[in-house]
Amino acid sequence: MSGKTMKVVPVIMAGGAGTRLWPLSREEKPKQFHDLSGEGTLLEQTIKRLLPLDPESCVIVTARRYEEASYRELARIGMEGTVLSEPRPRNTAAAVLYAASYLTKVYADCVMIVLPADHHIRKPDEFAGVLRLAVAEALKDNLATIGIKPLYPETGYGYIKAPPGEGDAFPVEGFVEKPDLPTAERYLEEGGYYWNSGIYAWKTSVILERFARHLPRHSDAFKPLFALDRDQIASSEGGPWEIKRAVFDAVESISIDYGIMEKTDGRMVVPGDFGWGDLGSWNSIDDILPADADGNRSPSGKKAVFVGAKNCSAFSEDKRIAVVGLSNVVVVQSGNDILVMEKDASQRVREVVEIVRALDSGAQS
Amino acid sequence: MSGKTMKVVPVIMAGGAGTRLWPLSREEKPKQFHDLSGEGTLLEQTIKRLLPLDPESCVIVTARRYEEASYRELARIGMEGTVLSEPRPRNTAAAVLYAASYLTKVYADCVMIVLPADHHIRKPDEFAGVLRLAVAEALKDNLATIGIKPLYPETGYGYIKAPPGEGDAFPVEGFVEKPDLPTAERYLEEGGYYWNSGIYAWKTSVILERFARHLPRHSDAFKPLFALDRDQIASSEGGPWEIKRAVFDAVESISIDYGIMEKTDGRMVVPGDFGWGDLGSWNSIDDILPADADGNRSPSGKKAVFVGAKNCSAFSEDKRIAVVGLSNVVVVQSGNDILVMEKDASQRVREVVEIVRALDSGAQS
Repeated sequence: MSGKTMKVVPVIMAGGAGTRLWPLSREEKPKQFHDLSGEGTLLEQTIKRLLPLDPESCVIVTARRYEEASYRELARIGMEGTVLSEPRPRNTAAAVLYAASYLTKVYADCVMIVLPADHHIRKPDEFAGVLRLAVAEALKDNLATIGIKPLYPETGYGYIKAPPGEGDAFPVEGFVEKPDLPTAERYLEEGGYYWNSGIYAWKTSVILERFARHLPRHSDAFKPLFALDRDQIASSEGGPWEIKRAVFDAVESISIDYGIMEKTDGRMVVPGDFGWGDLGSWNSIDDILPADADGNRSPSGKKAVFVGAKNCSAFSEDKRIAVVGLSNVVVVQSGNDILVMEKDASQRVREVVEIVRALDSGAQS
Repeated sequence: MSGKTMKVVPVIMAGGAGTRLWPLSREEKPKQFHDLSGEGTLLEQTIKRLLPLDPESCVIVTARRYEEASYRELARIGMEGTVLSEPRPRNTAAAVLYAASYLTKVYADCVMIVLPADHHIRKPDEFAGVLRLAVAEALKDNLATIGIKPLYPETGYGYIKAPPGEGDAFPVEGFVEKPDLPTAERYLEEGGYYWNSGIYAWKTSVILERFARHLPRHSDAFKPLFALDRDQIASSEGGPWEIKRAVFDAVESISIDYGIMEKTDGRMVVPGDFGWGDLGSWNSIDDILPADADGNRSPSGKKAVFVGAKNCSAFSEDKRIAVVGLSNVVVVQSGNDILVMEKDASQRVREVVEIVRALDSGAQS
């Protein structure tokens, strides 16, 4: 096996509608296509962070409605890449298999780095180093997953259990769902637990074998794609698109963790500490906005006005925000909507989105 | 004296810039020209509330920059009226004398009802009844002032002391400045104290005599206006405007209370209980917006979305506001600005206005 000649291709999962970041993130334009920090869109930053690995190319898996926007991001960065459009969302297992199938047609075999488009990473150099270790694990035919060294007993993430040993990567003992607080505290105390980042590296040949073993219906359903040539797999037009739709209709909606990682062997965690943040909801916006002396945050280029405010965050698309006499409040303006929220209530944005959707559909009828 | 034939003319004080209601109220378009409740602009409502008194005409005293907007309001209501433009703001004494001078030219003598344009009154019928009592007092050559029966120990208003006696109006013993809380509590307990509404009724002849007695420099300064005819006093063009400017330059900036009411005789308070509110700052917006079961408020026509919120108020010009997990917060959007504020911090809006003004002037230079 010659690791040195094997291509490395990032596969970016960019299909989410990200409604928990409403009103900025909407189905029409989800968060990955927004510039939240003033440093480029999340998708753009995700791609740029991978450039130190000198990737052969780049694959973006997304929904058909975001295909054009994704190609525009690639063009803006000047990056070679292919956008794979899912005919319908079927969770991460299908997205990974779609990319693995395409890459197999293109390169026969390669290392794919799977990563979500909505993460924030404060230390890109450290991140690139950790990815190199993960690629090294993949080249040994392992399924490498990046584990974030936990900083506090977060109950919103899944954990990876992997007691530390020699070297840079440790065998995974198990995956655990989002714990309650006492459990999370125990994890932190005991050590050997990592936040599950959802970032992976493996050979396409290795993951295809795992699909055949653990998700055979996925494996079977995707076989027709192998009869197409590479351009046909990527194309959204005509016949191949109909084939893809049939493929996605045939598979269950299941995550790569639940479908494969939790059940299989050869799993190695590569621990990382690179200022990672999952921009899943508005209380995580603080990870990417600079703070003033009172802990108030707004993007560098669009300063909000804070008077007698503490630990408030303001993010606006085109309005100016002034926050007076409040603590721990997030204010977001985007398009026609303004969200004003207690930071800890950010899980309730979904309720707002549902109400707003009903209002909008009522207004149209 | 034949009271039955004397004309009654409302004089509406509409010159304020109302920056405490920023960002809705701005110098370019202050609060009196906004429709806050969905029931018409404050100025419009102020005029309409006076219609039951069958006024002869209507006078609006305002700044020159609001002259056109004021005439538009009159036209919209279909009300006869004159807008008197002040060349510069010199507080209420000058405004009252300006109107009294104009009305003397038009009617020789009449009863003028002086009232601010930014009050909210929930019971317009009761209000009209109280005004009729005040007019009756004015016809007896008294200076009538409306006193609001205090509902709680408010420290933000001045009080009128007038121990109750027989009839509908009582002699004023004195005016007191905004009290501290123990004093306000004592006023409420003792009784015989009323909130000073800034609403008055008097004959022009009577108030002119008081100006001569208590504010002789005002009286002298305004004499040149009496040489003009009625159209010239109202006109903003040419020579009369230059005369008016000289008049306003010559008088000190003093309120009608401080300059006359606190010093003079013949003062009668007419107590009223008509759901009065002074829309001076955002914490008073609750007086005019309907509340839901959780005490959350927004204008009837522009429902905001409240999720897990309590006693919050949302007022927007053209955006939709969603408030999540917060209590006692006011959210206001107008033009390019969004204000998010703890209700009790509403006095700090001035600080925001100053910062924003500095930002805007910095942006222009």
